[in-house]
Amino acid sequence: MCGVFGVYGHPEAATLAYLGLHALQHRGQESAGIVATDGKRLHTHRAMGLVRDAFGPEDLAKLPGFGAIGHVRYSTAGGSSVKNAQPLSAKYAGGSIAVAHNGNLTNAEEVRERLEARGSIFQSSSDTEVIVHLVAISIQRAVEDRIADALHQLTGAYSLVILTETSLIAVRDPMGIRPLVLGRLPPSESPGLVASEPTAFDLIDAKWVREIKPGEMVIIDEKGLRSSFPFASSPRKSCVFEYVYFARPDSKLGGVSVYEARKNLGRRLAEEWPAQGDVVVPVPDSGVPAAIGYAERSALPFEMGLIRSHYVGRTFIEPEQSIRHFGVRLKLNPVTDVLRGKSVIVIDDSIVRGTTSRKIVKMVRDAGAKAVHLRISSPPTEWPCYYGIDTPTRMELVASSHSAEEISKYVTSDSLGYLSLDGMLNAVTGTRGFEGERGDFCHACFSGEYPTSLGPGAVNGTEGLMSPRRQGL
Amino acid sequence: MCGVFGVYGHPEAATLAYLGLHALQHRGQESAGIVATDGKRLHTHRAMGLVRDAFGPEDLAKLPGFGAIGHVRYSTAGGSSVKNAQPLSAKYAGGSIAVAHNGNLTNAEEVRERLEARGSIFQSSSDTEVIVHLVAISIQRAVEDRIADALHQLTGAYSLVILTETSLIAVRDPMGIRPLVLGRLPPSESPGLVASEPTAFDLIDAKWVREIKPGEMVIIDEKGLRSSFPFASSPRKSCVFEYVYFARPDSKLGGVSVYEARKNLGRRLAEEWPAQGDVVVPVPDSGVPAAIGYAERSALPFEMGLIRSHYVGRTFIEPEQSIRHFGVRLKLNPVTDVLRGKSVIVIDDSIVRGTTSRKIVKMVRDAGAKAVHLRISSPPTEWPCYYGIDTPTRMELVASSHSAEEISKYVTSDSLGYLSLDGMLNAVTGTRGFEGERGDFCHACFSGEYPTSLGPGAVNGTEGLMSPRRQGL
Amino acid sequence: MCGVFGVYGHPEAATLAYLGLHALQHRGQESAGIVATDGKRLHTHRAMGLVRDAFGPEDLAKLPGFGAIGHVRYSTAGGSSVKNAQPLSAKYAGGSIAVAHNGNLTNAEEVRERLEARGSIFQSSSDTEVIVHLVAISIQRAVEDRIADALHQLTGAYSLVILTETSLIAVRDPMGIRPLVLGRLPPSESPGLVASEPTAFDLIDAKWVREIKPGEMVIIDEKGLRSSFPFASSPRKSCVFEYVYFARPDSKLGGVSVYEARKNLGRRLAEEWPAQGDVVVPVPDSGVPAAIGYAERSALPFEMGLIRSHYVGRTFIEPEQSIRHFGVRLKLNPVTDVLRGKSVIVIDDSIVRGTTSRKIVKMVRDAGAKAVHLRISSPPTEWPCYYGIDTPTRMELVASSHSAEEISKYVTSDSLGYLSLDGMLNAVTGTRGFEGERGDFCHACFSGEYPTSLGPGAVNGTEGLMSPRRQGL
Amino acid sequence: MCGVFGVYGHPEAATLAYLGLHALQHRGQESAGIVATDGKRLHTHRAMGLVRDAFGPEDLAKLPGFGAIGHVRYSTAGGSSVKNAQPLSAKYAGGSIAVAHNGNLTNAEEVRERLEARGSIFQSSSDTEVIVHLVAISIQRAVEDRIADALHQLTGAYSLVILTETSLIAVRDPMGIRPLVLGRLPPSESPGLVASEPTAFDLIDAKWVREIKPGEMVIIDEKGLRSSFPFASSPRKSCVFEYVYFARPDSKLGGVSVYEARKNLGRRLAEEWPAQGDVVVPVPDSGVPAAIGYAERSALPFEMGLIRSHYVGRTFIEPEQSIRHFGVRLKLNPVTDVLRGKSVIVIDDSIVRGTTSRKIVKMVRDAGAKAVHLRISSPPTEWPCYYGIDTPTRMELVASSHSAEEISKYVTSDSLGYLSLDGMLNAVTGTRGFEGERGDFCHACFSGEYPTSLGPGAVNGTEGLMSPRRQGL
Repeated sequence: MCGVFGVYGHPEAATLAYLGLHALQHRGQESAGIVATDGKRLHTHRAMGLVRDAFGPEDLAKLPGFGAIGHVRYSTAGGSSVKNAQPLSAKYAGGSIAVAHNGNLTNAEEVRERLEARGSIFQSSSDTEVIVHLVAISIQRAVEDRIADALHQLTGAYSLVILTETSLIAVRDPMGIRPLVLGRLPPSESPGLVASEPTAFDLIDAKWVREIKPGEMVIIDEKGLRSSFPFASSPRKSCVFEYVYFARPDSKLGGVSVYEARKNLGRRLAEEWPAQGDVVVPVPDSGVPAAIGYAERSALPFEMGLIRSHYVGRTFIEPEQSIRHFGVRLKLNPVTDVLRGKSVIVIDDSIVRGTTSRKIVKMVRDAGAKAVHLRISSPPTEWPCYYGIDTPTRMELVASSHSAEEISKYVTSDSLGYLSLDGMLNAVTGTRGFEGERGDFCHACFSGEYPTSLGPGAVNGTEGLMSPRRQGL
Repeated sequence: MCGVFGVYGHPEAATLAYLGLHALQHRGQESAGIVATDGKRLHTHRAMGLVRDAFGPEDLAKLPGFGAIGHVRYSTAGGSSVKNAQPLSAKYAGGSIAVAHNGNLTNAEEVRERLEARGSIFQSSSDTEVIVHLVAISIQRAVEDRIADALHQLTGAYSLVILTETSLIAVRDPMGIRPLVLGRLPPSESPGLVASEPTAFDLIDAKWVREIKPGEMVIIDEKGLRSSFPFASSPRKSCVFEYVYFARPDSKLGGVSVYEARKNLGRRLAEEWPAQGDVVVPVPDSGVPAAIGYAERSALPFEMGLIRSHYVGRTFIEPEQSIRHFGVRLKLNPVTDVLRGKSVIVIDDSIVRGTTSRKIVKMVRDAGAKAVHLRISSPPTEWPCYYGIDTPTRMELVASSHSAEEISKYVTSDSLGYLSLDGMLNAVTGTRGFEGERGDFCHACFSGEYPTSLGPGAVNGTEGLMSPRRQGL
Repeated sequence: MCGVFGVYGHPEAATLAYLGLHALQHRGQESAGIVATDGKRLHTHRAMGLVRDAFGPEDLAKLPGFGAIGHVRYSTAGGSSVKNAQPLSAKYAGGSIAVAHNGNLTNAEEVRERLEARGSIFQSSSDTEVIVHLVAISIQRAVEDRIADALHQLTGAYSLVILTETSLIAVRDPMGIRPLVLGRLPPSESPGLVASEPTAFDLIDAKWVREIKPGEMVIIDEKGLRSSFPFASSPRKSCVFEYVYFARPDSKLGGVSVYEARKNLGRRLAEEWPAQGDVVVPVPDSGVPAAIGYAERSALPFEMGLIRSHYVGRTFIEPEQSIRHFGVRLKLNPVTDVLRGKSVIVIDDSIVRGTTSRKIVKMVRDAGAKAVHLRISSPPTEWPCYYGIDTPTRMELVASSHSAEEISKYVTSDSLGYLSLDGMLNAVTGTRGFEGERGDFCHACFSGEYPTSLGPGAVNGTEGLMSPRRQGL
Repeated sequence: MCGVFGVYGHPEAATLAYLGLHALQHRGQESAGIVATDGKRLHTHRAMGLVRDAFGPEDLAKLPGFGAIGHVRYSTAGGSSVKNAQPLSAKYAGGSIAVAHNGNLTNAEEVRERLEARGSIFQSSSDTEVIVHLVAISIQRAVEDRIADALHQLTGAYSLVILTETSLIAVRDPMGIRPLVLGRLPPSESPGLVASEPTAFDLIDAKWVREIKPGEMVIIDEKGLRSSFPFASSPRKSCVFEYVYFARPDSKLGGVSVYEARKNLGRRLAEEWPAQGDVVVPVPDSGVPAAIGYAERSALPFEMGLIRSHYVGRTFIEPEQSIRHFGVRLKLNPVTDVLRGKSVIVIDDSIVRGTTSRKIVKMVRDAGAKAVHLRISSPPTEWPCYYGIDTPTRMELVASSHSAEEISKYVTSDSLGYLSLDGMLNAVTGTRGFEGERGDFCHACFSGEYPTSLGPGAVNGTEGLMSPRRQGL
C-alpha cells in the first residue's frame, strides 16, 4: 500500500504535492517524498515519517518548478530505510526520470537478475528500480515509448506516476488493480493532476475528472494531455479491499462512495450474521461506517464504545517486567459505561493474525460486557496479496488454516461472523453509482484466485521491496 | 489545559509515567516531561512535541528510580519553548523539588514581583515557578509544610503533582477546579498513582481508587499515604467544560462517565433545539457522543459525514498564492454522498471565534447539503477562563459581543442552537452515577461567575505562562 | 582557564564577539557563548564545542544589538554540559544581567550555602551564579554598585565581563590574577572593547588601549567610559603561567611579548640545564619558542622533530583489544630521519602527571634517538591552582611527591632539567618591555605561596564549576 | 587530493581504518568514509567532515568484520555532498564491491557517455563510479580480472583500494602518479595494510613493508598476498608536489623523508635566492621545514613569527559592513616583537592565486617589518593538475600569465624568489635515501609536461568529481 500524486503546470507544484500527500497519508506512513521539475532538472526530497515531519518550509523551497510527483510509503516490518523511500529518481542517457509506484511487480526478481547479468547496478532492493533500468536500456527514443517498452516486460500491479524534466506521465496496469484518478485545478479546464484517490483533490479545491483506465498511459506536458493504451487488453481486476479497508471513506472509487459501500457491507453483514445484542460498537476508525450500517439494519443502538487514541506512534516503550503487550491498549480504550452488562456486537473490517481481535474481545469483556459477538465486514483473509498490500504469508494468516469457529474460540468471542464473498461483492456492486460488473474485482486475498501468473520469484510485499534475501545490500 | 501524572513505589516509575502521559496526551500536545527520583537525586527529561516524539528508550533509561511525575502541556500561540515545559525542577536549601501543574494561578504576577524585589531570580515566565520560589523561602522545615505555606499565598486553580527525592505529593486547590484522581497498581493495595483523569490508569492496568478531594494534600512515601486538608474549606467549583470537551470520553469524573454525560448533552440539545433535518453529523472527534445522543432523541440517522485526518500536524505549509486557509480542510473532509441533498444537523461542542464553524458550515454546504443546522452542546462561550484553559480574550470570543442569531448569520448556518446553561447542568448532573450537587461547578466561561477574586494581575492563559509582558526574557 | 570578550557601541556587536572568541579559542574549547543587547533585552546563544561549531549565521542573526559579551570555556573531565556554559544570564528585579567569568572564586561554596538558606534557587553548579545571586539581593540601586557589593563578599580570581541592557562592565580582581585588557575599534577613539588577551583585538583590526588594572571596574555605556576602584588596594599577583603556557605567543601581557618571554625561558633553561645533545626538538605547539631560545643559546640545531596533528578531537575510538593508549600518538608523530641516531633535547613547558612526557620520551627513543634529554621551561608543578586553572589535585601532580630525578626515571629520559623559580621570574621580568616588579606574580602552582586565603570550601577547578559534590543536580 | 587506507585480516578492521584515516586527514577534510566486510556483505558509513566528526562509536559498531577500506576526501568549492563521499560501493551480478580512489581519470567523461548510451545508470558525478560500472559489465569472471579489464579502458592517475566480500585489492596506475604503500601489523609477518602514506602505519604501530609499484595490482585474501602487473609498462611519473606540500613531513616516500626533502628545498632556495634579511619566518605549518633549511644555509635566525590558529573552520561569519576579508587573519597572526623593525624573509611552499600571499606580506609589513622578502620552495605554478589535485584553471593561476617580478609587485613584497625546476628536482633527488632517477617525477603543474594524453573530456578536479556540467543531477 502506498499513495501517489502528480501535478503539472502549477507554479507551486511541490506545495500542491505536499498537500495532496497529506490527504493520502492513510495509504502510507513510513516515508514521504516529492520530486519536482523546473524544466531543466529534477529536485528531490525524501524522508522517513509522516508528510508533516518529512517536509519543512526549507525542504519545499528547494523543490522549485511547475511539475511534481509525490509518494507516501507504507510501514513494513523490515526494510525500513530512506533508501527505499520513493519517488525513485535516476539519470540515464536520455535524461532524468523519477517514478512513484503503488502496487507490486510479480516478476521483478527474474528481470532484475537478467539486468544484473548484463551489468546493471542496482541501488536499492525496490522493484520499482527495475522499471527505471528497463527504461534506461530501452532502444526506443521517446520516453513514453521507453516506459511502454519497460512495462511490457513486467507483470503485476502498478499505478505509476512518472516525472521527467518536461512531462508528467501516469500509467495504470492493464487490470487496473490499484486505483488512479485524474483531476484538474480550476480555473484550468485541462487535467493536470493525478492521484491514488480523489480525496487528494478535495483538499486543494481541485476537481475529479475521471479514472485513469486500466492499461492507460496519460502524458501531460506543455502540449496538453495525450492518452494511449500501449498494452494488450485484459479483464479489469480492481482490488476489492480498497472498499473494505484501504481507501478513505470520503473517497469515491469506480463511481461508488467508499463510505456508502462500507455501510452496505455492514447492512449485508447484519443480514447474514444477525446477533442477539444490545449495542453495536465499531473498532474505530475503519469499522465505523460498517457498524452504522449494521446498527441501522438491525435496529440496534450504535455506540462509540471503543475510543481510539490518535497520538500513539508506531513504536513505544514498555516496562521491562511487563508480561502483556500494551499495543492495542495504547490505541484503544473501552468506554466502560457503554459496555458494562451489555451484549456487545463488535464490528471490524478483517482479521489477519487474530492477535489484535483477541485483545479487543478481552478488553470489551473486561469492561463488563456479558457477551461479545464479533462481526467482520469481509470474508476470511486466507491468501497473501502479491499486488502491493503487505499481508503476512499464509502461514501467519489465521484464516488460512482455521475455521471461523476455531478463530472465534481463539479470539474468545461468543460468536464470530464473516461476510461472505458473495455478500461482499453484492454490497459493493449494489452501492449507488456503481459502474461496471461483478467480475471486475480482484479478491485473491479471500478466494486465492490470482488474476496474474505469479512465477517463481513472486514476492508478497509492499511495492518497493523485494524479498528479504534481496534486501542484503 | 495540561495533564499531570505521578507514580511512587514502582521499579520502572518513569516508564509508567510515560505510558500514563500517552493516555493524557489529549490534554496537551506542545511538550512533555518526566522527572524521576532514585531516592538520591531527581533526573529530568523534557522536550517539545508529543510523548511519542519527546521520549525514546535512551531518554527513559536516564530516568531511573521508584518515583516519577510527568506533565503534558497544551499548545499555545506564543511562549512555546522547552524552557516553559514541565515538570519544573529546582534545588533549594532543603533539597530538590519538581512540580507538575494543571491549572492557573490568578495572583502569580503580584507574588512574583514581591519575590523578585527580595532577590529571587526567575528562570521562566511560568506561574508554576512562583510555587517553587515560595517553597524555597518558606521558614517551615518539612517539605509538605513548605508547600502548604506556599499555596496559602496563592489563589486560582491548581492540581499539582510534586516529587522530592523521597516522596510524591499531590495537591488540589480548595475549589477542586481541575480534576485529580488517585489510583493503585495491583497487586498493591496501597495507592501509588495520581493522574488528571482515570483513563491514565486504564492503560497500565491500574485501578481507580478515588478522587483527590478539593483542598486535599496527599503525601505518598515509604511510610505509605497520608492525607491532610491544609486550607480553609471552600465550596466545590469543578470545571464543567471538562464534561463538554476536555476530558476523554472514556474517563469518569465525579462519578459520571464523560461519554454518557456528552450523550445526555446531545439528548437535551435535541429537546431544546430540535431541527427539521435528514441526518445528524458530528464534528469529530469531540462531537461524536453528543451527536449520537441527539440522533437517538430525534430518531434521526447518525452519520460520520465529516472525516477527520489524524495525520495533520500543528503547522503546515500553504501555497503562497493561496487566498484561503487550508487549516480546517486538512483536518476535516466531507463525505459527499452522505450530505448531498440532505438537510444536515451538525453537532459541535462549542464555538470560540466562529471562524472554524464558518468553514465547516461552508464545507458541508459545498458538499451539496440543502440546509445546515448547527447545534452546540454547551452555552455560548462569552468569558475567558482564568483557571488553566487557553481561551482567547473576550474581544475575540464571538459570543461575548454577538447574539446566537448574529453568529448563525456569520457562520452561514440555516439555524443555530446553543444548549442552555440550565440544560447543560441538568444533563451533567442527571447522568447516572453523579455524586454531588448542581452548585458544584465552575461555569464562568459561560456565565461570567468566577469563583475566585481575579486581582489586577490575573492572567488568562495556560498555566505555566505569565502574561505576554512577562515573557520578555 | 577561559576566555572573555566584550564589545559596546558597534552595530554588529555579536559578530565582533564571535570573531574575538576565535582568537581566544586556545583558552577554552569546551563551550562557547555570546549574549547581546539591543538596549531592551538580552539575547543569548550558548553551545558545546568550538566557536566555529557553536555558531552559525542563523545563531548570530538572533543576537541583534550594539553590545555583546562572549565566553569560551575550558574542557574539564566532568561537569561538561551546556548548562555550565557561559555567559550566564538572569533576570532579577533590577533588570537583566549576563556575566562572563575567567577565574575561580575561593569562597563560592560558603556564600552559596548562605544564599540557599535564605531561599535562593541555583540553576547550575557554577560559582559564577553566586555573583548573579549576590547582585540580585543587593540593596544597592545602580547595577555597578550592586556588582561591587557582590564582589566585596567574594575572594579569589575574577576577570569579569558583564552585560546589562544598556551597559558593558569589566572588573578585575584586586590582585589582577587573570589578564584583562581594554581596546578600541578605529575610527572610534573611545574604548569599547574588553578581552582576556590583546590577540583578540588584532583579529578585528582593533587597537590595544591598556590593561584593566587590578581592582578596577570599567563601565562603558552611552555616556562613554567610567573607571572606579571599589576594592581595598592589594599587591598585584598576576599568573606567571600565562607566560609559560596559557597565553598565545602573539599576545602581549604586562608590556611583554609572550613569544619573547618564552624564548627567554628557553635561553635561561639552556644556561641552567645545558645538555650534550645533537638537536633541540620542541613538543609542539607550546614548546616551540622556548626550544628556539634553547637552541640559540646552546648553538645547537632546532628541528621540528615531532609533528602535531591538528585534526584530532578530544575523544576518539580505540580498538577494544588494544593495551596501549593512542592518545599521544594521534596528536604527535616523530620525524624519524631527524631523530635517528641523535642525542635529542626535548623542550616542553611543564609536566603534570608525567604520563604524557613518558610517552613522548618513548616515542623519540623508538624513532632511533640514542639519548633523550628532557628540559622543562618552568619549575616543577607541585601545587594545584585555585584561581581558574584546571590542574589535578596534589595527589596526581607527579612533582608534588617525586624529585626531578625520580621523575626522570619514570619518564625514562636520560636527563631531566626544570627551570628554577628564580630563573623563570628572571626570564619573564627580563624580557624587553616588562613593566612592574619581580613580586607581581602568583606562582603558587610552583611555590605553594597562595596569595589569598583559601578557606574550607576552596575548590580547585575551572571557574564555572563547583566541587564534584555540588554537581549533583 | 584524497587519502586511502585498507586493512585485511584483523578482527577490528574498521577501527584500524578509522585510526589510519586520522593520520591521512591532511589529505582531505571534506568527508570521510569506511566500508567493512564480514565475509558475507559490505557495511558502509560515510559522512561529511573530519574523521573525528564523521565517526562515533555507534558508527564503528555497525562496521563489523575482518576487512575494511577508508577514504578521506579533499574540500572542493562545489560538489560538496555526502553523495560524492567515498568509498563508493555497489552490488553487481558478481557480488559487492567498494572502491576508494586517490587520483583523477582523464577520460572518465567519454567512457561515462558510452556507458550511459548502453543503459548504465549513474548515481553520482564521481569519476570513480565509472570504474565500478566497467567492473559490472566486464565479461571476465574473477573480480581481479574484471578490475584489470576496467582499468585498461581508463587513463589518468589512480591509487585504488578496493574491497569485496572476501578480499582487499590495491592498484596503482602504471606511472605511479599518486603514492600507495604496503604495510603489516606485527606480530603478523604478512602484509595486510595499504595506505596513501606510511604515516598511517605509524599510528597503529604497524610497519612499512614497501611501496606498491607503479602498475602493480596486489590482492590480499585468505590465501595471502598475490601481486601482478596487468598493464603495459610505462615510465614512472610520481607527483613531485607531494614532497613540496601534500605529504606529511613525517612520511617517507620513494625512500626519502619528506621533512628532509623540504629542508633541502629550503637550503637550495637559500642558494638560488639569498636575501639581505634579519630573520627567516615560515608560513606555518607547511613552510616550516623549508624555512629551517633556508635559515641554516643562510646562517640567519629562524623564528615562528606567524602564529597559526588551528581552531578555524572552513567557513566563518564576517561582519556585513566589512570591506576586507578576515580569512587569512583568522588563521595567521603576526608576532609583532619578532617582526618589528626587521627585514623578514618569509618562506612559503607555493603561490596559487596570489591573494593569500598578498595578505601575508601586508600582515608582516603592518607588524612593523622594514622589508619583506618572499621565498617560494617550488617553481611558479603555471599549469592545472589533471591527476587529482584541485588546482584552479590556468586563468586563475597567477603565475601562468605573470612574471615573478609582476607577482612580487602584486603581493607587495620587496623581492620574490621561486626555486627553479632544476633546483627542486635536485633537492628532492639529493635527499638521503632517494631511490630512482631524476626523470621519475611528474612536474606538469610547473612545466606543463603532462605524462598522459588529456583528451577532450579531461577534467581538472579532485577525483570523484566530474566537470561542473556533469554535476547536474
